[in-house]
Amino acid sequence: MKKLKLLNERIVSRINTNLKEFDFDVSRFVKNTIEYEKLAKFYCFYGITAYHPIDFKFRNASMAGSYFLGKCFVNQSIVYKSDIRGDELKRKGDIMDKDHPLPLAEDETIVIYGSLLYKTLVHSNSHNLETPEEFTIRNTVSAHYANIHGSTMAGCFLGPFATVDLMNLHSCIIGEFSYIQAGEFFHKKIGPGVIHVESDQFSFKYRYKKNVIDKYIGVNEDFQPRGLIYNFVRKKESEYEKLFEVVDMPPVDAPESSAVNRYAVIKGDTRIGENVLISQGAFLDNAHMGNGSNAQENTYIIDSQLIGMNVTAHGGKIIHAKIGQKTFVGFNSFLYGKEDAKLTIGKNCIVMPHTIIDIKQDLSIPDYCIVWGYISCEKDLETHLIPIDDLMALNGELKTGRMVFSGNGQNFVEGFSRRIEAILTANGAYCDYDEDLRGHAQEGQQISFNTLQPYPEGDDKGLYPSIRILP
Amino acid sequence: MKKLKLLNERIVSRINTNLKEFDFDVSRFVKNTIEYEKLAKFYCFYGITAYHPIDFKFRNASMAGSYFLGKCFVNQSIVYKSDIRGDELKRKGDIMDKDHPLPLAEDETIVIYGSLLYKTLVHSNSHNLETPEEFTIRNTVSAHYANIHGSTMAGCFLGPFATVDLMNLHSCIIGEFSYIQAGEFFHKKIGPGVIHVESDQFSFKYRYKKNVIDKYIGVNEDFQPRGLIYNFVRKKESEYEKLFEVVDMPPVDAPESSAVNRYAVIKGDTRIGENVLISQGAFLDNAHMGNGSNAQENTYIIDSQLIGMNVTAHGGKIIHAKIGQKTFVGFNSFLYGKEDAKLTIGKNCIVMPHTIIDIKQDLSIPDYCIVWGYISCEKDLETHLIPIDDLMALNGELKTGRMVFSGNGQNFVEGFSRRIEAILTANGAYCDYDEDLRGHAQEGQQISFNTLQPYPEGDDKGLYPSIRILP
Repeated sequence: MKKLKLLNERIVSRINTNLKEFDFDVSRFVKNTIEYEKLAKFYCFYGITAYHPIDFKFRNASMAGSYFLGKCFVNQSIVYKSDIRGDELKRKGDIMDKDHPLPLAEDETIVIYGSLLYKTLVHSNSHNLETPEEFTIRNTVSAHYANIHGSTMAGCFLGPFATVDLMNLHSCIIGEFSYIQAGEFFHKKIGPGVIHVESDQFSFKYRYKKNVIDKYIGVNEDFQPRGLIYNFVRKKESEYEKLFEVVDMPPVDAPESSAVNRYAVIKGDTRIGENVLISQGAFLDNAHMGNGSNAQENTYIIDSQLIGMNVTAHGGKIIHAKIGQKTFVGFNSFLYGKEDAKLTIGKNCIVMPHTIIDIKQDLSIPDYCIVWGYISCEKDLETHLIPIDDLMALNGELKTGRMVFSGNGQNFVEGFSRRIEAILTANGAYCDYDEDLRGHAQEGQQISFNTLQPYPEGDDKGLYPSIRILP
Repeated sequence: MKKLKLLNERIVSRINTNLKEFDFDVSRFVKNTIEYEKLAKFYCFYGITAYHPIDFKFRNASMAGSYFLGKCFVNQSIVYKSDIRGDELKRKGDIMDKDHPLPLAEDETIVIYGSLLYKTLVHSNSHNLETPEEFTIRNTVSAHYANIHGSTMAGCFLGPFATVDLMNLHSCIIGEFSYIQAGEFFHKKIGPGVIHVESDQFSFKYRYKKNVIDKYIGVNEDFQPRGLIYNFVRKKESEYEKLFEVVDMPPVDAPESSAVNRYAVIKGDTRIGENVLISQGAFLDNAHMGNGSNAQENTYIIDSQLIGMNVTAHGGKIIHAKIGQKTFVGFNSFLYGKEDAKLTIGKNCIVMPHTIIDIKQDLSIPDYCIVWGYISCEKDLETHLIPIDDLMALNGELKTGRMVFSGNGQNFVEGFSRRIEAILTANGAYCDYDEDLRGHAQEGQQISFNTLQPYPEGDDKGLYPSIRILP
């Protein structure tokens, strides 16, 4: 175990050097998080398909419980139960920047160096124009259920349930349950519960009240998560264990056009339509998944119905709810209906990332609306909802409750809509057996895994031997 | 599947070129043996321990169900459910040839090239003085349950249940159920059921009657095995399946000094003493394993007792028998006692490799004896047994039944005894917690596995991606 502990110290030291200006000591987080025996006991796996370029290389790393797909190099890092999805990595010859239409010199590769990613999802649709061949996560520690979504970063700490979306971060701290999608940040510290979407054309900002964050997803002085959302996912953790105990899972009843990842939990009366994608780590219990809908990594869909063409972004939680046609549920949203307090959301709505809806009575959200922030009853909708048409008409500033929007509303809405269409297309929602429209739902069906274990004892215990996998 | 079929054709063509002089067409064997869908469905695994040098490399190969340990390169080959044990590979600096005490230039590596090994055990204690750094199996096809035991070879076909022991073979055919240990063979065809042990000092030869071979382990015109021994192992095959369905097995009740491989079947009232080694693929049902005894790969010990310090060599089968202290049971021996016909073997006996004892009444073999060949009743012992002291006193020729011994008996016995001691030591039978006497039983306890799967579809289906595993 000696070398693993040394590796850990090295990671901590490098990140503290990067975050010196904030007087931040990541070792308080790390020493309360890492369970060395688990790192030595678990295994990681690398997905092999006929569609994704194969190149997996790692050295001096521990990767317990993690899942990798596509080209990926891991060095001097600890990757714990993280899913490193390489299915949207760009390929040699792709053109990323329309203003400078130079084709990529080689296939894009995920490079994880000097980092500790703890139950952190890395999604590979990167937006770094500077080095499009390399998706880099360097000298970074990310806490429980953080999302690194198409974002490169160096010298950062991401708090529990934080999401960094389509960005480049340099020496930043992102607070727990904060969502940022704002191009590029240098040396910034973002507090907890901040929702911040920004482009040249518009800005959307919301900040949760401290008592709401404390109730749902706070941290203690060692940055360990606590609160209702963390307890919710922790209670379900044991249900995943049986997925890892067996080599092959019996197939789930689903149409040929749909993919159900064998590392998803499928329970109760769950029904799966055409062109549906159920990703690794999704949890479905009495879930009715309409045609073209998806449940991405770390989503929970319980006693709920998704009518169709629904995106449930990473970490989204939908309980006792009915979600209308083409309604989008953003990252880490917690839609917490109850047996006697159903949530109904109309069609073509946008539930902003990191939205919390926790209701005691039935609640309906009309068609074509955007909702955000903390909604506990009908009255909260007055300050947490805007009809899409109204936002489309806006050009200027709108303050309502704790939200401030400024800029071009049409641009904001159209940007979101384009992205939802892109996600649906990438996931194969429009496939209908047309080869050109195949997506993750179809290409992820036939997958095999290389399952890799660490050294079982000695100084190397918990570290993995160096492995290179090539076609 | 296209590339896998092409690989197969290439292997067949090369071996046929090597065996041209015998007018032998290996494609008759191959086309009746290979089930392509199984090759695409199974996985192989590579063992990681703190004791065995790690280097695993393969390209353009299929390795369904196979287990590898130690340094091993596989290229242009199909390895199906074979165990490639690299735990006795020599290390850099080792001196192999006492007459020419040059240390090995580098760690010895198993190299499998252009070969099809079908349920074939490869054991790595090689005796090739010419290239001690490389244990090569090239352009070779081996059939069901063949043993390649410390033997390098090129351009060979080994029939079902054949054993090649501590040899070098060049363009040879070894018949079903034949055992050869004779230094080096060039361009020879050995018929079925031949037991041949030869050195400068002595020669031991036995040949089974055709009707006995046909009853126990014959082949049809396509070299597919049939008969009582093959049916015996085939009936047990399904019991192994559950070992491959789960990632971790619950530990078997055994002392700290003993190793029970997690890919062994352990059933009934099985008891395991100190310093016991139960290898991959062993099958124990109501087996009492005395201190220091072992059950090597593909052995079956059923309703039987091994008193202690017993070697059960690869493929040995012991049913309704009691085996005395330090008695050795050789490769592929079939000791077939019955509920109402018990077999008792005394202490310090040698059961020669490929011995068949199939009895209808109780049978006892006294202490300090050597037995061989086909024994079905008390009377057969007259021509299939010699007291060790009598053989020790022999210098010349002895013919008894179908056995011919010539040369120095003392040399033969001492050679065997030294080898038994070496196996016991290597397996850790003398460990008693003395670090210097640790063996496979102790060093194989803490093992983790890299579990590797082939491409699931497309032209590459059934082939494995290239993998290199290094420390």
